[in-house]
Formats: sequence, C-alpha cells, structure tokens
Amino acid sequence: MNDRIRMREDGVPILLTPGPLTTRPETRQAMLRDWGSRDEAFIAMTAELRRRLAAVAGGRGGHVAVPLQGSGTFIVEATIGTLIGADEKLLVLINGAYGERMLAITRRLGRRAEALRWPEDQAVDPAAVERALRDDPAITHVALVHCETTTGLLNPLAAVAAVVASHGRAFLVDAMSSFGALGIDVGQTPITAVMASSNKCLEGVPGLGFAVIEEKALLAAKGVNPSLCFDLHEQWQGFERNGQWRFTPPVQVAAALLTALRRLETEGGPAARLRRYQENFDILAQGMTRLGFQLFLAPGIQAPIIATFYQPTAPWFRFPSFYQALAARGFLIYPGKLSQADTFRIGCIGAIGPDDFRRLLVAIAAIMEEQKEAVDGPVH
Amino acid sequence: MNDRIRMREDGVPILLTPGPLTTRPETRQAMLRDWGSRDEAFIAMTAELRRRLAAVAGGRGGHVAVPLQGSGTFIVEATIGTLIGADEKLLVLINGAYGERMLAITRRLGRRAEALRWPEDQAVDPAAVERALRDDPAITHVALVHCETTTGLLNPLAAVAAVVASHGRAFLVDAMSSFGALGIDVGQTPITAVMASSNKCLEGVPGLGFAVIEEKALLAAKGVNPSLCFDLHEQWQGFERNGQWRFTPPVQVAAALLTALRRLETEGGPAARLRRYQENFDILAQGMTRLGFQLFLAPGIQAPIIATFYQPTAPWFRFPSFYQALAARGFLIYPGKLSQADTFRIGCIGAIGPDDFRRLLVAIAAIMEEQKEAVDGPVH
Repeated sequence: MNDRIRMREDGVPILLTPGPLTTRPETRQAMLRDWGSRDEAFIAMTAELRRRLAAVAGGRGGHVAVPLQGSGTFIVEATIGTLIGADEKLLVLINGAYGERMLAITRRLGRRAEALRWPEDQAVDPAAVERALRDDPAITHVALVHCETTTGLLNPLAAVAAVVASHGRAFLVDAMSSFGALGIDVGQTPITAVMASSNKCLEGVPGLGFAVIEEKALLAAKGVNPSLCFDLHEQWQGFERNGQWRFTPPVQVAAALLTALRRLETEGGPAARLRRYQENFDILAQGMTRLGFQLFLAPGIQAPIIATFYQPTAPWFRFPSFYQALAARGFLIYPGKLSQADTFRIGCIGAIGPDDFRRLLVAIAAIMEEQKEAVDGPVH
Repeated sequence: MNDRIRMREDGVPILLTPGPLTTRPETRQAMLRDWGSRDEAFIAMTAELRRRLAAVAGGRGGHVAVPLQGSGTFIVEATIGTLIGADEKLLVLINGAYGERMLAITRRLGRRAEALRWPEDQAVDPAAVERALRDDPAITHVALVHCETTTGLLNPLAAVAAVVASHGRAFLVDAMSSFGALGIDVGQTPITAVMASSNKCLEGVPGLGFAVIEEKALLAAKGVNPSLCFDLHEQWQGFERNGQWRFTPPVQVAAALLTALRRLETEGGPAARLRRYQENFDILAQGMTRLGFQLFLAPGIQAPIIATFYQPTAPWFRFPSFYQALAARGFLIYPGKLSQADTFRIGCIGAIGPDDFRRLLVAIAAIMEEQKEAVDGPVH
C-alpha cells in the first residue's frame, strides 16, 4: 500500500492541510493538454464528471450533480442563493467557522437565517434541532457542516437528517472536507443538497466546486438566485440542454478531477479512502500523543480528516518557527482557526500515506528538541 | 518566429476559439506541482501575479489588480456587484452578447441599468454616449465591451472613456478578449475598472478572472456587494492584509497564469503579442477571402482577435460537417453567436502562429472541395 501512494517529488513539500492538498502525479499530468470547452471531447468529460460525482454521493436518479467554477465557498453561496427563496428561512447549525460562513452568506444575500450554536469542541445535538424546528414553522431549510474543517469535528449527519426530514424541511450539507471519504448517501439519507469541492478528499486540484442536489428542488428554484453566475438552476439546465458549461469552465481542473475520480474508484471507493485516512490519523494521533501534544477534540467526535492539536504551553514553543522548521523539512501544516484556544492543524487527507506521517513524527520530534535546546541549552 | 511558437503536440487539436485556447507547454507544465495556498511560496506567487496584471494594464499606483476564482463572467458580475451601489445606475453600451450579459447581470442583481444598443456590426458611437450622459444625470457608471467576442468588433475605448470622464462618471471595461494584446493603459485612459480572464490573450489556462480597479473606487465600495464570494473590496482587503486569497485559489491555474505573464514580458509585451495576432489574422482573412468566404465585419472595426465569417450560401455547405472535418484534421473552430446571420468564428489568439493558419487554410480548401464533390460529384 505504501508503494502505491508513494508519490512525492523531490524538493516539493507535502501538504498536510485541508486542501489544496497533495495530489497524485497522474492527476496533475491530466492538466497537460488544452481542450475546447464546447467541443465534444470536453462535453463527454463533463458528462462523466457529473455522473461520477452523483455516484460518489449515492445519487440514484433523484439527485443531479451540478459543478461550478471557483472555490468551495462559491458552491456554498450558489446553493444557498439558488435554493432559499425570499420568503423562506434557513436554520444554520454552527460549531465552527464554516457554519458561521453559511450564516454570513445567507444574511448578506438578504435571506432570512438564524443559528443554533455549539462550542467548537461539541457536536451538533439533533434534539436541539428537533426543538428548534418544532418551535419555528417558518424555517424551511436546515444547513449542517458534515466535518467542520475548523477542528476536524464530525457532526451526526444521519441523525440530523432524520430530524429535518421528519419535520418536512429541506436539508443542505456542507461536505467540503468529508465528500469522497466519509460516507454520504443521498439515496439512503434524506439530503436535499450536498456541497463539496474538487480539492479535498476527492484529491483533485482546486478550482471547482459542485453540489449534488435533489432534482425536484432544482426544478422549483427557477428564477430564485439574483446572481447569474451562481444560479445553479440555470447551470443545471445548461448541462442538460447541450452538455456544456454556461460559462468557460476550468478545463484542466475538470480533467484533473475526472482523473482523480477514476482513481477513487480503482482505489476501492470512499470506504477504502477512509481506511487510508484513518490509518494516517491513527499514526499521527498516537505519535503526537507520545511527543506530548494533546488533541483538541474528544475521540468520539473526531473525524480522521484533520487533527487539531493544542500548541504546547512550554515557554520555548513558538508556532511560527515550528511551522518554518517543518516546512524546511518538506511538511506544510496548517495554522489553527479557533476562537477559543491556540492550536494548529495537521491534515490527514490527500495522496499521502502512513510513511509520510512516520517521517513527519520524526521531524516534529527533532524540531521540538531543537527548539527546547535553543532556550535551555543542550542536555548533556 | 515560427519556431518559437511551434508548440503543438501530436494528436491534440489546436484551439481556434476565443478561449480556452491553445497554451504553451511550459504554461501547462507549471501546473505539475501542488502548493499550499497559505504558504509563503504561494503568497509570493500571488504578489507577483497581482503586480504583473496591474502592470499589463498600465497601472501606476492608483489601480490595483484583484484576481478572482472562476470564469470571466464571474469577474464581470463581481465588479458590477462591488462597484455599483443600490442608489446608482449603470449605462451599458451594447453591440453584442457580452454587452447584453452585463445588462442582464446588473438587472438580476437588482441594480438600476439601462442600455444603448447598436447592431452587431457597428461600433459604439461616443456621440450617442455623450447625449445619454447629458440627458440622464442619474447614470453613475458606464460599461463597455472593448472587443466584442461575439463578432471580433473593436469598440472605440479611448473616445468613450474621454466622454465618460468628461461627465464625471465611472467607466467599467470588459476587456476579456483584448487584455494582453490590444492596448489598455489605465494610467493614460480614464478607466475605473478593467476586467479580463486568464485564458485569452494572456494565454493562461481558464479558472481565474481579475479586475484592475481604481483604488479609490474599491475603498468606497465597502459593504456594497450582497455576495460574500464576489465582494472585490473584501477580496482586495484580504490580499492587502496577508497576501492570501480569502477562499481557496486554483493554485495550479494561478501558477500557469504567472508563467504565461512572464512569457508575455519576454515575448515583448502586448505590442509584440498584437503583432503576432495581427499576422495570424491577416493570413487567415486573406486566405479565406481567396476561398470565397466573407468577413462579417468591415475592416475598420475588426480586431485581430477573432474573425467572424458568413457561412457560405452554397446549398451543399453544412456547418456541422465542416466543423467535424476540421476537428478531424486537428483544428477546433467556434460556432457563431449572432442573432442576425449564420456565421462561424475562427480565433487568432493563443500560442499559435502563421504556420498554423497556413495549414488551416489548406485544410479548409480541401474540406470545401470534398463537401462540394459529395453533392455535385467529382469534377473531371
């Protein structure tokens, strides 16, 4: 297995970030040619891309994949703007920065929205969602972040979906950092729209987002979005009409994603990918614990996608120099994004495997020793 | 010169389209690695990218480059949504589909807009703009498409800019298919914002748009845009704050564009690029005229960017089979986009040169002969 995922080039750091992340060379090599975006070769690629994205979500006819140019936040804004009408109301379940972002997007668009909030280290509680929906019949849609990239917290998708469905409301899922690894099945779980991007667990390069949306919700969304570019009803109709993107697509990014989706299938699908990420996470978590680091989240709500560690409280620890020293050894990690604690994050996703994490741990141990010695003087 | 721009790979058609277009191999090869979007290496690339984009526009301190994820239409919508407030009014000068698109974007956003229209084969008339501005003091902004990709028509940018400036209104220029080749100098010509994308005359790959905007207009635009993703004030503030993109950038597309911008400089800048495109256009136009094709536009308003030809009226001519036969020979051309006539388009931009057009003309001559014979029988 390690050989199969051994893919690092000399001199290029591996990305232990939540995306853009380290991709396979063949994914990047798929970008080495030009395509006419309205030519039949690219139309066929778009059709396969849409079919594979829907399939990864478990779509069985009732849902369609609508890719969109831009970053993950673009597809979130487009989905909210397309599906939530002027007389509707969104309830956002928030326990991290990406939940807050959905709320901010909705309110800026002039749509009604309110929030239920939990601390950043606690999962969304379906019972509280149940009460909120019972108390406010004006709520038409509920939005959840599946895996909060802020921390790595895994929210209880199926339980929340069941509550939302039992109240007859629509359910929007930001699956940005889970799609392609953690199980999402719109054929089993009542989900109106699931949103994600090319450059996380699908292991493509950044530049595309997509939503897998219930067809009947899209049909009902004609004319809702005040944005021409973000109107996913029209984007979908464009694909259905002639197989083409309405506006120039990033053809190379799409080609890379298609290559990555084919690879996901040969790798064994999301379940196999999750096993690899889980192995990455376990090696990382155990090794870091041995080195004295502490995970921010309790094990029961930790997804094996990204790990948030408290910064050591030792007086000699400096995150910027820790980051720089790791970068110099070929590892790019990620700063924390928490309001309540000094942390840093290490991503477990991308075309990386257990050996990369073993090497990382060796590097971290050496850097910690160096930093400590720089202050304490060497231990004799 | 032909050697320097000889860059076609076997089996891959060249794109005679208005973008995505044929790029140089080194531009695509720049996409062969991964970057952490918040790491200093990519921050430095972003800074160079912004500096080079502003420089191509002639920016000398008063204007800043704001790149944005997505297609060219995304940056047009973002610029309009950011710069035109709820109590302001846009006058759109229209002689093609891209002018109509600006009007549609503005009205969908709920902003006030009206249009002055000309036929698709006539340039915008500065005198009419002058009258419109004199008659309607509510107009705060004027928008023009520099080169209408619909036809290849070149609008009189400097004359319109002078009229708009003399009336103290802001001026937005869609320079999608001219930027990097046809001269635009915001240091000389009074332009508030010029919008373009990575994948036209800059010869990058698609996935990024950008606007070069007067800094004081951006400063005044805080809080105007109801879209989080398309708020160019915040996008700009993000770059100024820490050098980073607010939301995940398409790192490989940015790397390709940076490579393409460096190449533009070594090639001699926009003036040298325009000479190459002009040579491409002249060979094409003369050869097509010899073959009996007729250009849609009069020479005085034709930009050497894309050529629109009438479809032959001969009863044996079928555009789909003409397109297919050219594709089979390695040339992808572009359908027409006119409301008033059956046409097709051939782009002169991209990493292509005179020899490519000579080969194209040989192919077109052969295909026309085949199609004619298929109906008439061979001539003995």
